[in-house]
Amino acid sequence: MALANIRIVMVETSHPGNIGAAARAMMNMGLSDLCLVRPKDFPSAKATARASGACGILRAAKVCDDITQAIADCQIVVGASARDRSVAWPALSPRALAEKFRPQIETQRIAVVFGREHSGLSNDELDLCQYLLRIPCNPKFSSLNVGAAVQVVAYEFYQAAMAQHDATGTAPPASDGWPANLAPGDAVPAGAAEIESFFSHLQQALFDIGFFHATKSGPSLMRRLRRLFHKARLEQKEIHMLRGILSQMQIRLELQHRREAE
Amino acid sequence: MALANIRIVMVETSHPGNIGAAARAMMNMGLSDLCLVRPKDFPSAKATARASGACGILRAAKVCDDITQAIADCQIVVGASARDRSVAWPALSPRALAEKFRPQIETQRIAVVFGREHSGLSNDELDLCQYLLRIPCNPKFSSLNVGAAVQVVAYEFYQAAMAQHDATGTAPPASDGWPANLAPGDAVPAGAAEIESFFSHLQQALFDIGFFHATKSGPSLMRRLRRLFHKARLEQKEIHMLRGILSQMQIRLELQHRREAE
Repeated sequence: MALANIRIVMVETSHPGNIGAAARAMMNMGLSDLCLVRPKDFPSAKATARASGACGILRAAKVCDDITQAIADCQIVVGASARDRSVAWPALSPRALAEKFRPQIETQRIAVVFGREHSGLSNDELDLCQYLLRIPCNPKFSSLNVGAAVQVVAYEFYQAAMAQHDATGTAPPASDGWPANLAPGDAVPAGAAEIESFFSHLQQALFDIGFFHATKSGPSLMRRLRRLFHKARLEQKEIHMLRGILSQMQIRLELQHRREAE
Repeated sequence: MALANIRIVMVETSHPGNIGAAARAMMNMGLSDLCLVRPKDFPSAKATARASGACGILRAAKVCDDITQAIADCQIVVGASARDRSVAWPALSPRALAEKFRPQIETQRIAVVFGREHSGLSNDELDLCQYLLRIPCNPKFSSLNVGAAVQVVAYEFYQAAMAQHDATGTAPPASDGWPANLAPGDAVPAGAAEIESFFSHLQQALFDIGFFHATKSGPSLMRRLRRLFHKARLEQKEIHMLRGILSQMQIRLELQHRREAE
């Protein structure tokens, strides 16, 4: 299991100590790729102190202005969420997450995104994620410290990697029946940036045909469409096909507009 | 599983923040029994701050002069150790620990003992333990923060308790992360007939916008679209939404056709 392909993304972390704790937890569990989106206070002596011997991870950490930058080259994006959300997004426990994506992580990059200390991730940020990560815990006190949450997730990835290492057989199949390992060039999973471009295109096309006017529910409609296409775990070729359809529809409308104008 | 029968014992903890972090981790995972042996600085505002909402555990924590007092009423005693010991003590991972003692903990009390930040437990202290606890981790950086170690152990006990609960209860978790049991009217999977009607509608709409002419690959295109939407395991509401979009597109084209004809 390629632990190097696991990226921990921390969004607007307030306390630099939590960044240090996350770095230490990552290094304890063989992870190395840390990305910080608009950290409040970084670099910071407090982060370095809490990182203990894991300063290398802090030094190598990427700092981004935007979450979309942080996940752009990741095929799998998972967002940590302690709260129940109105939209039924698929939720995985850390153990299920590590088990499910064990085969994929050999060749794909996964981002696990952690939100702010007090408010977590926004709905817009969770929209970028294909799965929610829910750490099973006491329902009466369900908010883990963000560094502790990173510890639990990193721990589960390391356990899964060890289990795979110990096993002598071949890679287990994906749990949902879809082929886990696909031949290169055959079915390449789309990256987060490609998927976001598709959603922008889709939104524009729906606007062009007047669908947002017809439904008066643009944001929640887009959220439901995002959920639908995230479920399908789009491949690059599928994105091309879908965008081809959208373009053709737009061309047809445009042609008719022009004919009308003539 | 009686999580109340699990005692976390912290020996000569230097940093009160780690005591607070441990209390929070415990409460997150349904544990409540904390015992501190000669803490360097306790009670402490730093401990309270890091405990977040788990101050109740700090207030109820017992403070002892000696580790033997702390474990006196426990039937099972396990000592955390990152280092290899010269004596070959039986070592358990947190997961194996939680699994192994799940039946006993219904009626017996277990102490999990964590040592000093820099030097762990002494050999004399480990002699009091029936088992070593070893958290599997990066051999090149194997020293977890003590609060993080408590988090991992408490997490494993909680997972074991939940697994037991599920075994006796009803709803099994969905294998692929998608909710298995959904409230009626919330997310009802579409039936095959509905899905086929959607594909017919999609095919007609693609014909209407001239996409089949543009690509000259109708059958294989439809196959790829079928595959894509099957992956998403469409729900009834999603079918309605998608067909709403197709209808709106057709209406818009039709309107323009009519305007052209006038």
